[in-house]
Amino acid sequence: MLGLMQDIPLLISSLIVHADRHHGDVEIVSRRVEGDIHRTTYRELHSRAKRLANALDALGIGMSDRVATLAWNGYRHVELYYGVAGKGAVLHTINPRLPADQVAWITQHAEDTLLFFDLTFLPIIEKIAAQCTTVKAFVAMTDAAHMPATTGIANLMCYEDLIAAQDDRYEWPAFDERVASSMCYTSGTTGNPKGVLYSHRSTLLHTFAVAMPDGLSVSAKEAILPVVPMFHVNAWGIPYAAAMAGAKLVFPGPALDGKSLHELIEAEKVTLSAGVPTVWQGLLGHMEQHDLRFSTMRRTIVGGAALPPAMLRTFEERYGVTALHAWGMTEMSPIGTACATRAKHAACDREALFAVKGKQGRAVFGVDMKIVDQAGTELPWDGIAFGDLLVRGPWIVNEYFRGEGGNPLVTDASGLTWFPTGDVATIDADGYMQITDRSKDVIKSGGEWISSIDIENVAMSHPAVAMSACIGVAHPKWDERPLLVVVKKPGKEVTRDELLRHYEGKVAKWQVPDDVAFVDAIPMGATGKMLKNKLREQFREHRLPGA
Amino acid sequence: MLGLMQDIPLLISSLIVHADRHHGDVEIVSRRVEGDIHRTTYRELHSRAKRLANALDALGIGMSDRVATLAWNGYRHVELYYGVAGKGAVLHTINPRLPADQVAWITQHAEDTLLFFDLTFLPIIEKIAAQCTTVKAFVAMTDAAHMPATTGIANLMCYEDLIAAQDDRYEWPAFDERVASSMCYTSGTTGNPKGVLYSHRSTLLHTFAVAMPDGLSVSAKEAILPVVPMFHVNAWGIPYAAAMAGAKLVFPGPALDGKSLHELIEAEKVTLSAGVPTVWQGLLGHMEQHDLRFSTMRRTIVGGAALPPAMLRTFEERYGVTALHAWGMTEMSPIGTACATRAKHAACDREALFAVKGKQGRAVFGVDMKIVDQAGTELPWDGIAFGDLLVRGPWIVNEYFRGEGGNPLVTDASGLTWFPTGDVATIDADGYMQITDRSKDVIKSGGEWISSIDIENVAMSHPAVAMSACIGVAHPKWDERPLLVVVKKPGKEVTRDELLRHYEGKVAKWQVPDDVAFVDAIPMGATGKMLKNKLREQFREHRLPGA
Repeated sequence: MLGLMQDIPLLISSLIVHADRHHGDVEIVSRRVEGDIHRTTYRELHSRAKRLANALDALGIGMSDRVATLAWNGYRHVELYYGVAGKGAVLHTINPRLPADQVAWITQHAEDTLLFFDLTFLPIIEKIAAQCTTVKAFVAMTDAAHMPATTGIANLMCYEDLIAAQDDRYEWPAFDERVASSMCYTSGTTGNPKGVLYSHRSTLLHTFAVAMPDGLSVSAKEAILPVVPMFHVNAWGIPYAAAMAGAKLVFPGPALDGKSLHELIEAEKVTLSAGVPTVWQGLLGHMEQHDLRFSTMRRTIVGGAALPPAMLRTFEERYGVTALHAWGMTEMSPIGTACATRAKHAACDREALFAVKGKQGRAVFGVDMKIVDQAGTELPWDGIAFGDLLVRGPWIVNEYFRGEGGNPLVTDASGLTWFPTGDVATIDADGYMQITDRSKDVIKSGGEWISSIDIENVAMSHPAVAMSACIGVAHPKWDERPLLVVVKKPGKEVTRDELLRHYEGKVAKWQVPDDVAFVDAIPMGATGKMLKNKLREQFREHRLPGA
Repeated sequence: MLGLMQDIPLLISSLIVHADRHHGDVEIVSRRVEGDIHRTTYRELHSRAKRLANALDALGIGMSDRVATLAWNGYRHVELYYGVAGKGAVLHTINPRLPADQVAWITQHAEDTLLFFDLTFLPIIEKIAAQCTTVKAFVAMTDAAHMPATTGIANLMCYEDLIAAQDDRYEWPAFDERVASSMCYTSGTTGNPKGVLYSHRSTLLHTFAVAMPDGLSVSAKEAILPVVPMFHVNAWGIPYAAAMAGAKLVFPGPALDGKSLHELIEAEKVTLSAGVPTVWQGLLGHMEQHDLRFSTMRRTIVGGAALPPAMLRTFEERYGVTALHAWGMTEMSPIGTACATRAKHAACDREALFAVKGKQGRAVFGVDMKIVDQAGTELPWDGIAFGDLLVRGPWIVNEYFRGEGGNPLVTDASGLTWFPTGDVATIDADGYMQITDRSKDVIKSGGEWISSIDIENVAMSHPAVAMSACIGVAHPKWDERPLLVVVKKPGKEVTRDELLRHYEGKVAKWQVPDDVAFVDAIPMGATGKMLKNKLREQFREHRLPGA
């Protein structure tokens, strides 16, 4: 027997309709590629999203057609989020930091029908336009005055002209909530990128989880700056959660340097921000240099990579900003855990609290997780045992677009299917998960595992270290031993021996790296993660002392 | 094209599984009917819910069979919430304050198969057992030691014996999330009660909305005391939201007097409570009399009836407790609005803020609402225009159980269906809805409407008034004129003329009541609402001065 409640599907359009009706005057502020600060409201944004939907109809974009973007965080990108998905097409956000040929490959694989781009990325479009055979038109996200003069792109259109030509009367269609809404390709370090295809249902459920008090806690009182890109897993769902709650949105556009971010945070009275550690490094460096403070910012969400303990302390102790660790993956929409504290932690001293906050956090409701050994047997939640981290939930991938890579799931003894994250983790008795490493980055030293992340965190706590990576290098006796690769802070000095002494008392003796290599830069991937496979290649011939 | 996310249904069992796994050691504390304080945890509660599910299987309770409860707020009732719905049966919570013959009628109408009851309600069961022909057994929610000796009830069982006989291994089944999970009858003032049948999907979506920062804001940091009964629309969803977030639950059992509640709040370090104004009246009265304070309570949710402005002030100014107005209906699961403030309100002075907080609040995401005139035309959101309040959303009733009362919805010009709440309301430009009256309680004076609630609120702000009701009485010239019915506080005195003078400057002259009637008590319904139809009958012959 079914319940007798109204049968109303969970659709992305309902988010912007709600924001318009209940928070129509709340601002969306964007630093534009054009250079200025632009202000709009949910009401106006909804109106323009409806014009956009009419324009897409006029261009013949139908149900489930893919519409791609190469764009920064800004209001026009949000209009595309709602206009494209709202009408039943699929918003395909592409990472513009990928090599141009990979952008072209992804566009072909997704069979994108239109490609919207910020002017910054015109050179990429000029390079790939001819290869993108499924794309009917390229739309520059700007107005007529800023349109490039000669481009060599045959089918080039102007976003503002497209919008201006349309009416803002548009009835968002109702359809099955499982219909595809948006997609994002993972930039795997091996093989071709694989497309993750989100649905309206998965997006709405994920949005609830993101907005929850122990998720990112998004209310109508917040002004949120998502520095995390909208081309990277929907900026962790913030553009949706902000509309759900009626929060103000502040977008940095292309200006991600410390000075620009700090100015924007202060000018727009940002209360909550979200981004990866490398971006915060730039912000904190700028603030330290100019002795700046935050007037309104109370919380920051750190994800994409582990929050270094030193950064956690700087945020909390120097700036009074609560740093909240979150963890997820493209395959997870992306949020899996957030590190909100529990009632019992009120009694903890600062050091104990920092130890908790350094972990990736508790699973948000909707995500189930477990750690297993090589045989697939579940390991205890004791904070010590570590194993492969598996997850399941209604906003976690079931398969990749066009079946690429086959079935990504594993089935356990009770018949439940799980997605293996590729991470190695511990889970403690309070449910706090901590990534100890990527499965492939763990250093296997004589049958014992050494977490590369633990070794990097110790290096990062040294005042002269700007960035560090720990990789395994072949060793005749121990199979592998850790090598620490370090980028020094500008103007700071530290020697190999000083760095190795810095490990004394912080890790077990056998975990101390065998050697240190100083480099000018560590190779980074398009999503801001260190490319350790490149480093391993670079140091393959490195001879460790005593080896 | 569908998205490629995991197909996992939204089921009530997932709430208790999540709470067990992630918050297994968090406490559930109950004042029992047996008189003592009982402590358990989510882990133990889950174990007992699984034993209960096995017991229900053993008793032959199948998918969608109705299992009724007549019970206070306590851990055994929560076990029934999860054990019954988790296995696919329907939890039917009955209001024990209803007349016994109505309890019997509801039980027959719902075709309940089992009836679980707290010992308090043994007299009701003794009276109705013979009439409840569909009920296979009555289960006393107690242990063997407390079982009543001779009852005359043939098929009487003991809850603890039932649980003890079973194993706690139980695999919660997976099924369509639209399957019925629980039901609650509305106690309409006219006609027979009508059953509202919730689904797993509606319950889970409602739980997200309840837990959101601008809903009741439920996190793992809270210790929540739901005084609002679990037999009344699932205690506003708190037993579900607490499990979702891992919050501590504190249950008052049958002891709803001010002294018992204050003791429990202090002893269990309650941070958040929820209840109807009449219960808070008792609590605040006790605290004032004994000059008591709250040590840990920071917030209280007030719903079920309008929060009197004087009570709002007392909570906030005297006790430093944020009083949050919420509004809903049995037909709405029940939450429709909550009165969380917006960012712009940070600039308001105290009086302006109280004016906002006195409203019923903003629609939570998922609920859409509008006000319409007699012709069904939507009225503006200006805080002035008032009309019939209509709502729609995935946790709002589509039809009543067994089709009683026909189609309760109305269809608007654009083809959308809405549930008419029977309330008259305004909505302001910020989306804050304010109930001005029940459609049938509005006083129609010479073509103008007078809100009975406005008139009552002014009376309630007089220090000698304990309770007040304003009703329309026939008038030869004006059709109807307001009569104020008042219960004085014990030991306090006030005259008719003093009360009427109290209205000067607070309402328009033509809205001041024509007369005051002092009574010992105002008739109350089973859900704690004033029965104005009874009052209207009682004062039908009342002659107004000058009429």
